[in-house]
Amino acid sequence: MQEVISKTLEQIQPVSTDLLEKAQSHLDMLTKPQGSLGQLEELAKRYIAIRNGKTSKLEKISTVVFAADHGVTEEGVSAYPSEVTPQMVMNFISKGAAVNVLAKHANADVTIVDIGVNFDFQNHPDLLHKKINLGTKNFSKEPSMTRSQAELSITTGIEIANHSASQGVDILTTGEMGIGNTTSSSAIYSIVGKMTVEEVTGRGTGIDDLALDKKISTIEKGLELHQPDPEDPIDILTKVGGFEIGGITGLILGAAANKIPIVVDGFISGAGAILALKMNPSAGDYIFTSHRSTEKGHQVFFDMLGHPPLLDLNMRLGEGTGALLAVNLIESAVKIYNEMATFKSAGVSTKN
Amino acid sequence: MQEVISKTLEQIQPVSTDLLEKAQSHLDMLTKPQGSLGQLEELAKRYIAIRNGKTSKLEKISTVVFAADHGVTEEGVSAYPSEVTPQMVMNFISKGAAVNVLAKHANADVTIVDIGVNFDFQNHPDLLHKKINLGTKNFSKEPSMTRSQAELSITTGIEIANHSASQGVDILTTGEMGIGNTTSSSAIYSIVGKMTVEEVTGRGTGIDDLALDKKISTIEKGLELHQPDPEDPIDILTKVGGFEIGGITGLILGAAANKIPIVVDGFISGAGAILALKMNPSAGDYIFTSHRSTEKGHQVFFDMLGHPPLLDLNMRLGEGTGALLAVNLIESAVKIYNEMATFKSAGVSTKN
Repeated sequence: MQEVISKTLEQIQPVSTDLLEKAQSHLDMLTKPQGSLGQLEELAKRYIAIRNGKTSKLEKISTVVFAADHGVTEEGVSAYPSEVTPQMVMNFISKGAAVNVLAKHANADVTIVDIGVNFDFQNHPDLLHKKINLGTKNFSKEPSMTRSQAELSITTGIEIANHSASQGVDILTTGEMGIGNTTSSSAIYSIVGKMTVEEVTGRGTGIDDLALDKKISTIEKGLELHQPDPEDPIDILTKVGGFEIGGITGLILGAAANKIPIVVDGFISGAGAILALKMNPSAGDYIFTSHRSTEKGHQVFFDMLGHPPLLDLNMRLGEGTGALLAVNLIESAVKIYNEMATFKSAGVSTKN
Repeated sequence: MQEVISKTLEQIQPVSTDLLEKAQSHLDMLTKPQGSLGQLEELAKRYIAIRNGKTSKLEKISTVVFAADHGVTEEGVSAYPSEVTPQMVMNFISKGAAVNVLAKHANADVTIVDIGVNFDFQNHPDLLHKKINLGTKNFSKEPSMTRSQAELSITTGIEIANHSASQGVDILTTGEMGIGNTTSSSAIYSIVGKMTVEEVTGRGTGIDDLALDKKISTIEKGLELHQPDPEDPIDILTKVGGFEIGGITGLILGAAANKIPIVVDGFISGAGAILALKMNPSAGDYIFTSHRSTEKGHQVFFDMLGHPPLLDLNMRLGEGTGALLAVNLIESAVKIYNEMATFKSAGVSTKN
């Protein structure tokens, strides 16, 4: 394994239970029945404990969108043609996509990473150029990538997280673009979650019954052919993964190592997250969930993490849209923590 | 019935299906798979259709918090003493409560209405003085209020909505404060939802098993004694309601009559809403849900309205906190509608 990955895995520490308890004690003094803000209190408590000693505000919010293509699309598993990946990257650059609108609304900056799009962007100045290859291979016939490419995708994510830390980013959010990437993600969920392919495979951007059958059989073929080792996340990524998924895995590990809270978007980001959790379960202490995707395999992620989704809005767009909506809940929770009066300061009577 | 109420009920019109379809057509041209933003699309569509011709932004967001006391608290149905109602009103004025923090975060102004607190605020300049009585009567022994007081509480809400319309408010959100008001609300849910008291009664601010039994038997006693007419919302409000609940009913009716979208907070606001829906079901076209309260009777509201909650965060604080969190989702949805590129403008290929 590349040294930067093993070093990062060693750096990740569980969030201090002392700091968590201290934060809860403060929440319990505020003018509301104890626990009455439900999940908001959990968000505030964990955010404050993670950021102890650093700023407790969400001033620098940073969204990282990894884009890559997937060779498996040649099997007819997606509703949209592969050319949509670079077209959407250009749309991100022009700020016309949903992720741009929601990032602007959340006051987040957006970094678009070409980690493996099958298109030559010719050093476009508004992209981060980290292309590993012109898309993955068709994993129903050969491994998606080499093991060193898989490690490089993770390292790329880690380095972006390290850079974010050096820039004083308060919170990271994940995002992705890649036609075909629910196919790769479902393969990962199946292996990690020990579920059948059918149990974790959905309609992605909106395929019909026939294409869904094809998608399932394509994934089954790939898993049968490569037999990824369920206990080796890098092997899984190599054989059926995607470059953007590895980037997300690395971003999460790097965020956790740098004690930066990270909000994980939907189904594809969740695939990156479950690989990260396999590599170091303590990374989960730094992960904030966002929404529950309509992709049915998503529950594997919530179960592994042990936190429920914050939103359940029948969304299935990806890009980072769900994570950006969740940021507002975390920000609201942190403001509750910082700005509410206590029973004592407000002169309000406590419980009978 | 007071003339202002009957006039308001006549003014309420269903939202135009033409405008809804027009809004959906626009959403379908944006650079995302059709329907992939799930509930956000429904929010955008309805908001745009409601506000046709007026501003499509959420510039003036207005939160109305109705505060009142409940005579039924003398039965020992609440975890907090009644004195907390005026204390929390003072906390609202000092901007130390959760609703203040979330309103500031949402860029909403807050109007605190004394519609029946058992305390003399002596013309405090930061309160809207609409006191109908010093709290309701103990409804386990006598009706909460007179029928004309019930009508006055509704009229008060309508007039606040009318004033909001004259001020160009883009969206209203409901809120309340009143120790004992989950007891009154559960009584209303039971009658309107045709459910047993046990099925719709929860722990409010956090009562123990013994107090919960007392709360249930107290409500049962009141309903047995007064036999409110399930088809007469004003009769229900009169016999087991609260002034703040009537205020919320009126605010919703007034919002609908003025074509102002209104976000309904949690369990108590939902009690006001189901009375409004009984008075004119078309008011529901203007209602946006917020969160699902931990109070178990709340589902009656979602079923009557036909829209699911947007958030489910185990919250049970009230005040308007859930509605203010939901505002961000509606605002995000409206920005998606207004700011995203279309497939054509961005040069993105459509579905295979």
